[in-house]
Amino acid sequence: MRCFVTEYRVTFSDTDAMGVVYYANYFDWFEIGRTEFFRNLGIPYKEIDAKGFVIPVTEAYCKYIKPARYDEVLLIETWVKEFKRATIKFEYSITQKVDGIQLAKGYTVHAFLNKEGKIIRIPDYIVESLKRLTD
Amino acid sequence: MRCFVTEYRVTFSDTDAMGVVYYANYFDWFEIGRTEFFRNLGIPYKEIDAKGFVIPVTEAYCKYIKPARYDEVLLIETWVKEFKRATIKFEYSITQKVDGIQLAKGYTVHAFLNKEGKIIRIPDYIVESLKRLTD
Amino acid sequence: MRCFVTEYRVTFSDTDAMGVVYYANYFDWFEIGRTEFFRNLGIPYKEIDAKGFVIPVTEAYCKYIKPARYDEVLLIETWVKEFKRATIKFEYSITQKVDGIQLAKGYTVHAFLNKEGKIIRIPDYIVESLKRLTD
Amino acid sequence: MRCFVTEYRVTFSDTDAMGVVYYANYFDWFEIGRTEFFRNLGIPYKEIDAKGFVIPVTEAYCKYIKPARYDEVLLIETWVKEFKRATIKFEYSITQKVDGIQLAKGYTVHAFLNKEGKIIRIPDYIVESLKRLTD
Repeated sequence: MRCFVTEYRVTFSDTDAMGVVYYANYFDWFEIGRTEFFRNLGIPYKEIDAKGFVIPVTEAYCKYIKPARYDEVLLIETWVKEFKRATIKFEYSITQKVDGIQLAKGYTVHAFLNKEGKIIRIPDYIVESLKRLTD
Repeated sequence: MRCFVTEYRVTFSDTDAMGVVYYANYFDWFEIGRTEFFRNLGIPYKEIDAKGFVIPVTEAYCKYIKPARYDEVLLIETWVKEFKRATIKFEYSITQKVDGIQLAKGYTVHAFLNKEGKIIRIPDYIVESLKRLTD
Repeated sequence: MRCFVTEYRVTFSDTDAMGVVYYANYFDWFEIGRTEFFRNLGIPYKEIDAKGFVIPVTEAYCKYIKPARYDEVLLIETWVKEFKRATIKFEYSITQKVDGIQLAKGYTVHAFLNKEGKIIRIPDYIVESLKRLTD
Repeated sequence: MRCFVTEYRVTFSDTDAMGVVYYANYFDWFEIGRTEFFRNLGIPYKEIDAKGFVIPVTEAYCKYIKPARYDEVLLIETWVKEFKRATIKFEYSITQKVDGIQLAKGYTVHAFLNKEGKIIRIPDYIVESLKRLTD
């Protein structure tokens, strides 16, 4: 499936006293990747929210390969690994822009819920948009 | 005016690549101080929210004296410097528990707003509680 | 294996615009759990660092069961799932203190490295301490 | 004095349960502004670090005018307000890109230190670069 790429420059705020990026912050980058994925799909996340449903994370995983450091420009690649009746799984790859070296990869799983917190089917217009990516 | 003291242990997540706590994170500690201040006052912040008003920060300031480091136990001292018709000013002092050395001090100013975002007078029961602290 | 329990109170800083704790911040709590695990073991993490090796995260995973909210008091339970020649796997459970309801669970895998970044065997005194926990 | 402008898109991670950006995170944006200021000056912050001195924050202030929200594109304007023998003061303005409405403004004061933590004069080549901005 097609993937979308976003650039990100590492800040001091991202780093910790080991001199490299703190491990939890990679999940912030996965969020940025997801947000831009939905925007590229023509479905900004804000709209999803406005239509009355939410897509909370139910699982998150990251494999750390090589540490990211202050001021490096990274590429966040994001794609949909699979989607089912009511869930969607994103995969991510974090690489250095300068040389393409992979620093981390991971995934998040999300459920579709209405505002009352009940699991719902993925809305048709989102399913249609996702299917178009696999062509 | 009486001050309240909360303990906090510095995490890796708080630090940055300079080996010390990232400067923005002191404001997280000021928030912890405020939360415990209100709790000690008998007015948990969650209750304020439930009663239909909010107290957003309108100004924040911190003076950094000596860096805080990973795993240090800090004392967050919080007190009300002044309160007016619709605003309240908190002051904070961050010290090392082990030796009382001051690491930082600062303040935040807050407005009282209703849920529509209009400025309101500080509710009487909060004014009464605050006045009792000055006795 | 024996687990260690740490208390944590959710701050505003932990939450996001969905009204619940942001998903990446659970990994900050896992870090707090690990730090207190090592301290309880008699091996404060700062000492490990001082002895010239580091224990970076190589994998991190979290399953989100029920959202954590502002001002809730949580219990962070931490235990060692397994340790091999040069790696250690921690597991975590996050529950509400008030009723024991589980909000999240997860794990992190860590490698032992010397300051040059080379993988090393887990030092004997740490292996001994870990073994004592399984008795 | 000339100011530099950086774009930033608000993430979920930046927000809190009040539905707007958490107040401490504006200081992360000030850092981004400073980093890009130095880069535009031809003196990337990483180079400063490599030359053996650091520029820690000694004071930080922010005035919050209107809340920033998820997915908004902001402009971070950064300029030097003044520099003395051993200190430099940056000012910042955060505005919405779409309409130029100002959301916040603030400042940070920094000291120049060598790696031993002793205050030093601002290096000549930095003073020269800063002076060129005022022409």
